[in-house]
Amino acid sequence: MSPGATGKSVADLIEDRFGLPTQAGRDRPAEGALAQLLGHRTHRRYTPDPVPDDVLEIALAAALSAPSKSDLQQVGIVLVKDPAKQAAIGGWIPDMPWIAQAPRFLVFCGDNRRIRRVAELRGRPFPNDTLDMFMNAAVDAGLVLQSFIAAAGALGLGCCPISVVRNHVERLSELLELPAGVFPVAGLCVGYPSQAGWTSLRLPPRVTVHTDRYDDRDLPAELAAYDGRREARHRTPRESQRFADRYGYAEPYGWSEDKARQYSVPERHNFGPFIRRHGFTLA
Amino acid sequence: MSPGATGKSVADLIEDRFGLPTQAGRDRPAEGALAQLLGHRTHRRYTPDPVPDDVLEIALAAALSAPSKSDLQQVGIVLVKDPAKQAAIGGWIPDMPWIAQAPRFLVFCGDNRRIRRVAELRGRPFPNDTLDMFMNAAVDAGLVLQSFIAAAGALGLGCCPISVVRNHVERLSELLELPAGVFPVAGLCVGYPSQAGWTSLRLPPRVTVHTDRYDDRDLPAELAAYDGRREARHRTPRESQRFADRYGYAEPYGWSEDKARQYSVPERHNFGPFIRRHGFTLA
Repeated sequence: MSPGATGKSVADLIEDRFGLPTQAGRDRPAEGALAQLLGHRTHRRYTPDPVPDDVLEIALAAALSAPSKSDLQQVGIVLVKDPAKQAAIGGWIPDMPWIAQAPRFLVFCGDNRRIRRVAELRGRPFPNDTLDMFMNAAVDAGLVLQSFIAAAGALGLGCCPISVVRNHVERLSELLELPAGVFPVAGLCVGYPSQAGWTSLRLPPRVTVHTDRYDDRDLPAELAAYDGRREARHRTPRESQRFADRYGYAEPYGWSEDKARQYSVPERHNFGPFIRRHGFTLA
Repeated sequence: MSPGATGKSVADLIEDRFGLPTQAGRDRPAEGALAQLLGHRTHRRYTPDPVPDDVLEIALAAALSAPSKSDLQQVGIVLVKDPAKQAAIGGWIPDMPWIAQAPRFLVFCGDNRRIRRVAELRGRPFPNDTLDMFMNAAVDAGLVLQSFIAAAGALGLGCCPISVVRNHVERLSELLELPAGVFPVAGLCVGYPSQAGWTSLRLPPRVTVHTDRYDDRDLPAELAAYDGRREARHRTPRESQRFADRYGYAEPYGWSEDKARQYSVPERHNFGPFIRRHGFTLA
C-alpha cells in the first residue's frame, strides 16, 4: 500500500518523521515520490519471494540515474547472486541474520579504478590520487545507493543498508575480487517486506539545517528534547542499553546516550589502512 | 508535467537513460517515484520565481528522511539566504553563473562534529577519528543530497549539485562558519526550471553492475561503444574539446577522451590538507 492511499497529507508524514508539528504540506496529499521519500522505512524481514530480475533491473537503472560528480559515474555495484558468497558475508556478521536471509544482496562500491583506466587507455596522466577523489567515489556510490533505495520502495521492495560489511573489508574485497581503486561503501539487503517497519524519528531540522552560518549553540537542549521524543515513541528496553557492563544503566536512556556508548569503543580502524593499501594515497 | 503524464513506459525511460534496448518495465507506466528517479535531469536555468519556504521545508524533510549510517545522522545543511553570501560563492566560480542566479542555494555538509559533541556531553570517549568515520559523514551527506534532489523534482523544482565549491573549501568554511568536523560535500542550486534539460546518458549497467565478482575486462570495448552512443546523441562541438591547446583535437571525441583530459590536470589538491586541518586525522 502506498502512503498516498492512506489519506495522509505530506504534513502528516513530516510530523511522523520529526515528532514535531508543521503546517508545510498540510494541503498536499502524500503520494508518489514525496510519500516514498518522506515515508522511508528500513526493512530487515522479507517474504520468501524472490526479487525478479526485471524488477532489479528497473531499480538499478533508477539508481544509476542519480547525478554524479563531473559525470564520472564512480560507482560499481556487485550483485551477490552466488548463495555461498551471500552466506559467507552473512556468516561474518551473525548478529544481522537478514544479510544471509535477504532474497537479494548487493554491495555498493566507490569505483576510482575506471577513471584511472580511462586515463591510461587515452594516454593521459592522472595526477589526482587525492582525498577529494576518494570522497567523490564514496559520495557517488551514496547517491546511487539512495536512488536505488527510493526506487526499490516504489517497486514494493524494502531495503536495509549494511555499512558493517566494511568491518570485513579485506575478505569482502577478496570474495568479490574488488581490484585496487574499488572499495565497498555499503551492502544492501533487498526483498519484499514481511513487516510494516517503522519510521525512524529524525533530529529536528533546526539541528541539521542552518541558515547562512553553522550554529549548534542549542544542541544540548535540542538533544535532550529529541531523546525525550524518541523514548516516548519507542522506549529503549533496559536490557537493550549498550555496554551496561561498562557504563551501567542510564535513566533516562536515549539516542544521545546510545550513540555516545556505541562510539566509545574503536570501530573499523582497519578501513583506513585497507584503503591506503588498496590504491589510494588520500593526499 | 510529470513523466507519468507522457504515456511513456518505465522501459522507455531506461532506454533513454542508457541508449540501449530493454524489456524491463515495458508494461509499467512511467509515473510517481520511479519516473522521477529514472527521468532525473540536472537543471541550471531557473525562472525568477522564489522557492517558497514551505516547499523548501518539505524537500528538506524528505531529504532528512534518507537512511543514515548507524542512525548517526551526520549531515548538516546550510541554507544560504543572505544574497551577499550567495553572490560571494558565485563570484569564486564565474564559469557557473547559475550559482549566483539560483533562487535558492544550499550547501550539504558532512557533520562529524555533532557525534563528537554528543560523546563529550555524555562523558564518553570517542576513539574513532578514522577515515571510516569521515567517509560515513560524507556518504550520509550524499544520501541526504540525493533524497533532496528527488523530492525537489517531485515538487516541480530543478537542482544542480556543485561539487566545485570544494575548490574554495577554505573560504567557504569561513563564510559559512563551518567548525572543525564539518565539511562541505556539495553545493546545490535550486529553482523552478526554465528549460526542459536533458537526460544524461549513463554508462551501461554491464559496466557498472557486476555479478558475484568485479570484472571490467570488456571496459575498452564498452567505452568505445558508450562514447559512440553519447556522441550520436549530443555531438561535442569541436570548440568544446577540453585543453585542445595541450592535446590537440581528437576525432572522434567522446566521454572517455573528455574525462581523461579533465583529470589530466591536478584538481582540488587543497581538499585533503584542509580536512586534516579541520578536525580529521583520517587514520
